[in-house]
Order: sequence, then C-alpha cells, then structure tokens
Amino acid sequence: MEIYLDNCATTKVCDEGIAAAAAAMKTTYGNPSSLHPKGVEAEALLTETRKRLARLLHCAPEELYFTGSATESNNLSLFGAVGAYPRNGKTVVSSAVEHPSVENALKQLEKRGYRVKRVFPRKDGLFYPEDFLSQLTPDTVLLTIMLVNNEVGTVLPVAETITRAKKNFPKLLCHVDAVQGFSKIPFDLRKIPADLVSISGHKIYAPKGIGALFIRKGVRLAPLLFGGGQEKGVRPGTESVPLIAAFNEALKLIEENGNQYLEHYRACNQYLRERLQEVPEVIINSPVQCAPHVLNISVPLSGQKGTAQIFLEALGKKGIYISGGSACSKGELSHVLSAYGFSKERIRYALRISFSKDTTFEELDIFAETLKEEILRLKAVIK
Amino acid sequence: MEIYLDNCATTKVCDEGIAAAAAAMKTTYGNPSSLHPKGVEAEALLTETRKRLARLLHCAPEELYFTGSATESNNLSLFGAVGAYPRNGKTVVSSAVEHPSVENALKQLEKRGYRVKRVFPRKDGLFYPEDFLSQLTPDTVLLTIMLVNNEVGTVLPVAETITRAKKNFPKLLCHVDAVQGFSKIPFDLRKIPADLVSISGHKIYAPKGIGALFIRKGVRLAPLLFGGGQEKGVRPGTESVPLIAAFNEALKLIEENGNQYLEHYRACNQYLRERLQEVPEVIINSPVQCAPHVLNISVPLSGQKGTAQIFLEALGKKGIYISGGSACSKGELSHVLSAYGFSKERIRYALRISFSKDTTFEELDIFAETLKEEILRLKAVIK
Repeated sequence: MEIYLDNCATTKVCDEGIAAAAAAMKTTYGNPSSLHPKGVEAEALLTETRKRLARLLHCAPEELYFTGSATESNNLSLFGAVGAYPRNGKTVVSSAVEHPSVENALKQLEKRGYRVKRVFPRKDGLFYPEDFLSQLTPDTVLLTIMLVNNEVGTVLPVAETITRAKKNFPKLLCHVDAVQGFSKIPFDLRKIPADLVSISGHKIYAPKGIGALFIRKGVRLAPLLFGGGQEKGVRPGTESVPLIAAFNEALKLIEENGNQYLEHYRACNQYLRERLQEVPEVIINSPVQCAPHVLNISVPLSGQKGTAQIFLEALGKKGIYISGGSACSKGELSHVLSAYGFSKERIRYALRISFSKDTTFEELDIFAETLKEEILRLKAVIK
Repeated sequence: MEIYLDNCATTKVCDEGIAAAAAAMKTTYGNPSSLHPKGVEAEALLTETRKRLARLLHCAPEELYFTGSATESNNLSLFGAVGAYPRNGKTVVSSAVEHPSVENALKQLEKRGYRVKRVFPRKDGLFYPEDFLSQLTPDTVLLTIMLVNNEVGTVLPVAETITRAKKNFPKLLCHVDAVQGFSKIPFDLRKIPADLVSISGHKIYAPKGIGALFIRKGVRLAPLLFGGGQEKGVRPGTESVPLIAAFNEALKLIEENGNQYLEHYRACNQYLRERLQEVPEVIINSPVQCAPHVLNISVPLSGQKGTAQIFLEALGKKGIYISGGSACSKGELSHVLSAYGFSKERIRYALRISFSKDTTFEELDIFAETLKEEILRLKAVIK
C-alpha cells in the first residue's frame, strides 16, 4: 500500500509527462541553441510549452522564461529586481509566511542593506490588502507576496493588493510566488498587474528541476547567471528539454481538466475535514477559505516533548506519506505556523496533508483511520 | 537517415538513463527533503550518484553538489569564490578561450571592479603553464581554466598549472571547467589540487538540466541562491531526482566502459582526419594533441562572404548534424577561434564535428562524402 498525501512537497509526474520526457531524451535530443534541425526541433518544444503556459496565465509567451526551479525563479525575481532598479528604493515589503526561497533571499537582502517589512496574518489567520498597502512608501522597490501559503494553504489577497499598490506607487515592482497557487486557485495575469511570477513544475505533475518565471514586458532583471544567452540572457544555461516536454504535458492536463482537478481538491478537502471531526485530538489549522489542495492540522499530545515526527514515522511505516511542514525547511520550527501565533506545541505537532488529482476518498479514509489508531496507541504509550 | 555529430553541443541520453529517469518520475517520485520513506528513497538516489561521481573524479561524495547546469556550476564557482574571499584580491586569471558561461561571468566581474587577465594560446595553438603562472600575483583571488576547449578540443595544462600555482600562492583558489574534458581525457582530483570543478550531465549521455560542482573540503562559496537548504545551502532548490537518476546511469556507463569510449573517440578522430585528407579545401583546426571526441575544421570558400551556415543547412537537409561552433554562442564570431589567431574567413567557415560512444565509421564516411559533394556543389554555384 502506498498513500501519498504530500503533494505540496512534490507530485508524482503524470504518465503523459514521463512519456514526453523519455521521447525528448531519445528523439528530440538536440540542443535548443543548435542551428541544425535537431536543435530546431528541441527549440520548438520550448516554444510550444511557453505558449501553453502563456494561455494558462493569460500573458504573452515572450514573457515566460524557463529556470531550474521555483527557488531560482524567486531568487532571480528578488535579486534581479533590486539589482536592475537600484534607484527605486531600499525597502522590500513581503509577508511573514513566505517560502524559504523568498524568506532567505529577503534575509540576504537585509544583509546587503535593504529594509524588509513583513506583514503578518490577522487573528483570523487571514491577510488583508490594507496591511500590505500601509507598509508601502516611495522607498519601496519591491513587493513580494506568495499566492498561496505552502504549509497552511492560506490564500493571500494578491490581486487587490497589487492592483491598489500599483495605483499608489506606479514604479513599484510586484512579485508573486505562485508555486502553491497556480492551478489550485484562479490566477489571471490580465486581472493582476504583477511584474514577476514564479511557477514550479514539480508541484503540478511535472518533474523536479523545472521552473518558470513570468517577467512582464518592459520589466528588466539583473541576471544571476551569465553565459550562452539562452532565455534571452535572463537565465543562461542549456534548457532542460526533457523536463520542459514533461512540463508541457502537465500543463496540457491542467488546460483540459483544470476545473475538474479544482473540484476534486475541494471535495477531498471537505471530505477529510469531515472525517477528522471524529477525532477530538485533531485541531484544524487551515482556515476554511484556504486553497483546496492542502489541509494543515495539529495533533498535540500533551505532556510529550516530541514532534509530529512520531506520526510521520508511524504513518510512513504503513505506507502513508504526509508532511510535518514544508519539505524545504526540515528540522526547523515552522516560521509560518509561528507567524500565525500558534502555540509551540501546536506547531511541533503540525501535520500537512495535501491532495493530488489522483487522491481517492478511500485513501483519505485509510489515512483518517490510521491517524486515529496511532493517536490512541501513542496516548497509551505515553501513560 | 540521422547522423548526429554534434556531441559537444549535447548528447543523446543513454537508454539506461532514460529508463532510470522514467522510474524516478513514476516510482521514486518523493521530494529528497521529505522525511518519509518516499523522500528517503529519493535522497538515496542522490547519494548513490554522488558516490559514483566521486569515484570517477577521485574525491569525496561530500565534496559534490548538484546544480541545474554547468553554466550554473561555473557561475557559482566564479561569483561564489570571489564573494566568499573578498580580501584575497581583485584579480582573476583565466584563458582567452573559455566557454561563454565563464567568459561572460568574467566580463561581469570586470564590471564589478575585478581585473581579469586572459592567457592566449601560443602560435602552435597550445597553452603552456608558464603563461598562466607569469600572470599570477598576490592579488589574484582566482585562477579559472577549462580542461578541454569546447570548440577546438585543445587540452589545457590544468594539472601542472594548478599544482605549480598553488605552490607559489597557497591561498589562490583554482577552478576548472571540466565540462568538455570529463570522461574524454584522464582527470584525477588526487593529482590536481583544484578547489572547484564544474561538470555537465548532457555532454556525457545524461539529460540537459543537470550539472555538478566539486567543492574541495574546506573551501567556501558565497551562494547565488537562497532557500530551503538543499545541497547544504550551497545550491538550494529541490534536486531534480529524475535527471540525477539518469546522470547516475550515464556515470555508470563511463565507470564500466570509459576506457573503451576513449579508444573509440580516438579511433573516430583518427579515421575522420584521414578521410578529410582527401578533401583539399579542408583545413584541420584542432591540433593533434586535442581531446579525441572533437575535430574542428574550416572549409573557407574564397570569394564568399557567407559562413559555415551554408554547410550546416546543406548537411542538415541530408540528416547530418554538426555545428558551426559552440551552441552557446550562436550567431557571433567565435572568440575562441579568434584567440587562436585564425583568419576571419577561416573562423566564419569553421565546422565542429564531435563524436559519441555510438558514432560509427560508416557515419563518418557518409559525412566526409557528403561534405566533399557539398564543397563541389557550392564551388560550382559560386562560379
């Protein structure tokens, strides 16, 4: 038995993506920069993928750049923006619940003399545009907000915040880390005047190792890498044609079935919330308004100094895979859950369950039952 | 018919690599940072690959880091080294024939106030340790030399140069761009005291999108990316498990058959040199002492203002794929061939033929015959 409920960490690649990656390695193996037909063939795959992603984001294909990961997209956005517009200011506004690839880049900016203002969620666990807008000053060079938080699933008010921010400060650059939100909640660049948007492949049924970055026409970035001029010099390095081919297939699935996937995530979320109501030890950390593919809970075992790790291990032995938080911050006390003001015990015992397009109610039943059993077993052990 | 002789630009992925990548996408799909068994399984693949590459390079697995490309490995080495050792000096010594991912990073360093000294080949087309050593001063923070040039195949005297440089300047950091040399000529880190070595997957039958970086124990680098702490924080971002799985298989092939591959490249090189002696219009640009997998030639058609592009197109139409230079500097007059002091005509009409483990003599026969025919045809057209 294998029940994989850690789809916020990474997803299994769709079969279509696996086949496309294999074909790209075997047949379309040319270097996209090569001028001969094998190169042209590979380049065509990049173009097709760019067009497809552009349709989904509602932007122009020329505004999309491939990277090696969303970590790279985020870092390139932050350092690239402040590097390209040094006269626009020395302050950056963000949220307190960003992914480590934004948060640690922000910390680095602080070391380089930037002031970073982090907006916290209110007591209801939600973020409000006013709280970002009130932080903006003429010295703010960049506003960077995630679309959906990766641990709790909170949806941040990106559209309204950026629209209003741009009205007050037309030169302000706005970046959205859309990794956990893209294809999980509606996102349309015609309605959101963001300048920069980071996308990850491996959260949406494409392989690990491919990311994308939207750069709105007219916006410049100081590159982090220098080389052969690939991706218009914004991100040099031979593009990973096999991963892009797989990404293309994952995007195709979303293009064709995205709405059904959304419905499915919502149904899973609703179903698991109901099932977990039977377990009194469980606290639901994710507000109801959250993105549908993720549910964060806590199972604080009073008197225990341990962490959610005991659940991860017990469930893991039974072939059920969930997470104790972000895969990208293993070992540390979640800065995200801390920002929500949860007790340390609640943070230490937090579990993140995240659904895929293939998650079944039966799997959720088994998870809920097994969790219940483990709680009882562990409580008995403690006594 | 498809005769692919552009293996310096990129190689076809080996069948074992394709199968391993597919398995990693389908089965070993966990996030290597996840603490559950699916994550541990993925992490084990990284460890296995690191160990294998360490055996081939003769270093410790802990000294190896995965990146998204050799472009990234090179940039991380150059910017990372000068960033981590700001007090060691403001001068960098290199060669005049580096790949764009080193050369353009060097240009960027010049913009940031560094002095870059570039060593040229001598009249015999070769590089000599003395020419690098005489450029070193106490202000030199970094010496970066490629192992094998990507356009001509020249082998640079990396071992002797670095060994002697380190004796004179123990604090000097030494980087080797080994992309075109690794597995093509002997390379043993027990004999070469390099601090940093860049490796690419897609030049050695692994897919595009995976690179590696050797960082000798004790050497620090200022990271370019900040995030989830992957690769010990030197290169955060979720590792591309499928590409690393394929890389592992490519390395396995080299471990098992590396010597035969070398013999095969040598035989191809020797055979094609002999076949091209029949064509008086062909000038061989690669010295005999070059790396065996590449042969650079020129076919200057006097009176013509064109470029090698006419040959690439004519051959491409017949299913024969070679290169007019580096795939990473398309459209520009090669700075490498310029450094060798060749005439502009010879540079414009340069063709690079590069062999793989699967190249056959029959393919080389067809290439030589077709080239001969095209030369005659084009000469007739010109008249």
